[in-house]
Amino acid sequence: MDLQRFAATVSYDGRAFAGSQRQPNGRTVQEELERAAAVLFGGPTRVDMAGRTDTGVHAIGQVAAFSVVTALPAATVGRALNAHLPEDVSVRDVASVLEGFDPRRWARRRWYRYTVHNAEVRAPLLRQRAWHVPGTLAVGAMQAAASALTGRRDCSACAGALEPGRNPVRTVFAAGWVCESDLLLFDIEADAFLPQMVRRLVGALIRVGRGTLEGEEFVRLLAQARPGSLGPSAPPQGLCLQRVAYDEGYLP
Amino acid sequence: MDLQRFAATVSYDGRAFAGSQRQPNGRTVQEELERAAAVLFGGPTRVDMAGRTDTGVHAIGQVAAFSVVTALPAATVGRALNAHLPEDVSVRDVASVLEGFDPRRWARRRWYRYTVHNAEVRAPLLRQRAWHVPGTLAVGAMQAAASALTGRRDCSACAGALEPGRNPVRTVFAAGWVCESDLLLFDIEADAFLPQMVRRLVGALIRVGRGTLEGEEFVRLLAQARPGSLGPSAPPQGLCLQRVAYDEGYLP
Repeated sequence: MDLQRFAATVSYDGRAFAGSQRQPNGRTVQEELERAAAVLFGGPTRVDMAGRTDTGVHAIGQVAAFSVVTALPAATVGRALNAHLPEDVSVRDVASVLEGFDPRRWARRRWYRYTVHNAEVRAPLLRQRAWHVPGTLAVGAMQAAASALTGRRDCSACAGALEPGRNPVRTVFAAGWVCESDLLLFDIEADAFLPQMVRRLVGALIRVGRGTLEGEEFVRLLAQARPGSLGPSAPPQGLCLQRVAYDEGYLP
Repeated sequence: MDLQRFAATVSYDGRAFAGSQRQPNGRTVQEELERAAAVLFGGPTRVDMAGRTDTGVHAIGQVAAFSVVTALPAATVGRALNAHLPEDVSVRDVASVLEGFDPRRWARRRWYRYTVHNAEVRAPLLRQRAWHVPGTLAVGAMQAAASALTGRRDCSACAGALEPGRNPVRTVFAAGWVCESDLLLFDIEADAFLPQMVRRLVGALIRVGRGTLEGEEFVRLLAQARPGSLGPSAPPQGLCLQRVAYDEGYLP
């Protein structure tokens, strides 16, 4: 049996997780994946992940990679892992990848979606997937402000505190709002994201929609290279990591 | 101030409820509504409901009615009730109704939707709203069997145990499946439903889809007037009471 490296697309309900990455306190997605792999393959297994999601943030397209000595084909590894994972995490599209595959560094693009429930009355069945925002929102102004996001720039303004020396430059390929009845979906695609970036953007864009932040002021704050200048974050339950893309040939 | 009767459309996430109707043990939707109304109106308030939903079953269109002495207009009553309700229940479209309005007896039609997630891998974010059914399903056969449901008949076959003397005759106006990517939605409209009726129908229709129950046998079992002859129920988390309709003029 040879050492094989696998990559898997991972979905999780973020509510009961203190985020994706292992940490001293709190249950994390990485730990659950490592625990399931350890049981399945009979020993400690390190799992690397493409993106760091915060406490309470969901995913349907996180990517995780791990190297194990096994004769099992990728599809069987996926089924077996799911049998050992708790009900709020699952893997799909498990694929063999190159030995050095690093799901974070090799990622080329990431997509996030933030769901806003824009209705007067809160909806119990949406409360764990969406941010309830009552009142009229100027969606045209939110859309115009979102269109200012595309391009390559220092994104410190929409990040929380950054470690010293961390490169805050990111390229946003597309960002915009889609209306689906009383849901407002914010989709954003970038090469990578800074911590809290999507939630701070949504927080500010909703203020634009409410008329408490002018579109021009949004653009001015965005241009500031000071962490957090865009203001408070939208809550985590509206956010979902949708997809991570790699260069052709580096599955999944 | 006069005694006013109000009707409200009620939504709830059924997971933490032992069903809709008050009972000796377990938290129920009726109790939460009565508790909120008692706080708001300063005294015991009886709440009547249109349909009895089982433990774990959701609603976006349940109807509840209550009579209170208040000068508040209906819209204000709705906002105030929501402020006193827990996050897994909310009311909307509160309206003044006739003094004798009985949400159960006056209901003319009810709509339920059952959501099946038909995919190989379970989806953590759908697990509390859908029944995960892996494997290929013969949707055409399920659709043909569903079309046999319309009409007026003794529906004992798709009920659990019935109290002696209860009329088991129901009229199904429409029933059918809709595919939305990997979701299969079963929509059914009837004058009223027997206990467990939708879940037993879905359980049997999924067996038709899997090929373990012939469509002709489904129709034969349906015609039997013996409670439960249609076989085991689908699980509760896939079911949602969508809407209850009244004759023109009897809001909501």
